[in-house]
Amino acid sequence: MAKSSSATPSRERIVAGAADMISRRGLNATSIREMAKHAQAPLGSTYHYFPEGKQQLATEAVRYTGERVARSLRKELAAGPAAGLRAFLALWRAIVVDTDFHAGCPVLAVTIEEPLADEVPPALAAAAEVFDQWEGLFADSLREHGADAEQAAQVATLVIAAVEGTVALCRAKRSTEPLDRTALQLQTLIDATIKR
Amino acid sequence: MAKSSSATPSRERIVAGAADMISRRGLNATSIREMAKHAQAPLGSTYHYFPEGKQQLATEAVRYTGERVARSLRKELAAGPAAGLRAFLALWRAIVVDTDFHAGCPVLAVTIEEPLADEVPPALAAAAEVFDQWEGLFADSLREHGADAEQAAQVATLVIAAVEGTVALCRAKRSTEPLDRTALQLQTLIDATIKR
Repeated sequence: MAKSSSATPSRERIVAGAADMISRRGLNATSIREMAKHAQAPLGSTYHYFPEGKQQLATEAVRYTGERVARSLRKELAAGPAAGLRAFLALWRAIVVDTDFHAGCPVLAVTIEEPLADEVPPALAAAAEVFDQWEGLFADSLREHGADAEQAAQVATLVIAAVEGTVALCRAKRSTEPLDRTALQLQTLIDATIKR
Repeated sequence: MAKSSSATPSRERIVAGAADMISRRGLNATSIREMAKHAQAPLGSTYHYFPEGKQQLATEAVRYTGERVARSLRKELAAGPAAGLRAFLALWRAIVVDTDFHAGCPVLAVTIEEPLADEVPPALAAAAEVFDQWEGLFADSLREHGADAEQAAQVATLVIAAVEGTVALCRAKRSTEPLDRTALQLQTLIDATIKR
């Protein structure tokens, strides 16, 4: 996704780099300077694209991750909720394995950091929208496959929450065993939900 | 838990304060000075108790949270896995509600932040042990109530991961609805697991 370095870094490369950095370090501990460096982009270009600074870039990074995952979910959920779950799990498994358990989900990362001021910062609001979107995609698919609306909403929320939590457990343990375990239980749950 | 300020702050008050601060802000973005201030303890006393500094205090904060939750789980799981789940959910619900969605789980917080050096820092190793402990308590209880070992391990991991993820979803949305949804699904799953 992130192209190799070139004279003019693309806006998308900076956003992708920021998403990766936030997923590793968290948001509060990461400066816009570090995000630019991580994306191999000059600070000047970064401020050119994101004149409002770090919160603007972080918000875009959250939305970028949200859309990238949603695109994959829309495609895979066409084959049913079980296929969507497999794709969702595979996506996060690849991230933790490819980074040797150093990276995870940037949407979760911005979520668990208290905003410094007494307001809801744009990146946190974007994170809430992303979770809603992912849950909505799963819930729609479950309903289309026969689940009732209430069950579909509950199972969709459980899937997103459980996979987010499991990625964190994998990082703590430096092992993919938590993903193996929750995958089996979530698959069983989805099968049961659409057959109820 | 944290007593009101006194001349000599207790070691436990500092650890409890650090756990709360890490659960709000994350670890990388929090200095030992801020943790001491948050616990209303002089920096001198804090270094007296934790001469190795921030990582030592963070590691104790993770262990403190682990033990506090484990104590509650041991007590409630005596009445069965469903009672243990209810207590676990109630504990996290109280934290997010009482802090207006500003605080969450310090064990998760240290987990999703990449260590700055290329090693496993003590706080991260402690987090892995805490998750293992909580999962072990649930798995033992499920087995004692008739679940087979493999199912018990999978469901226990799913419960811990799902609740951790759900707390994060609640913080993003500033709502307890995600907890309501996953609670119902996890209760059903635990009932089904011990009746299989």
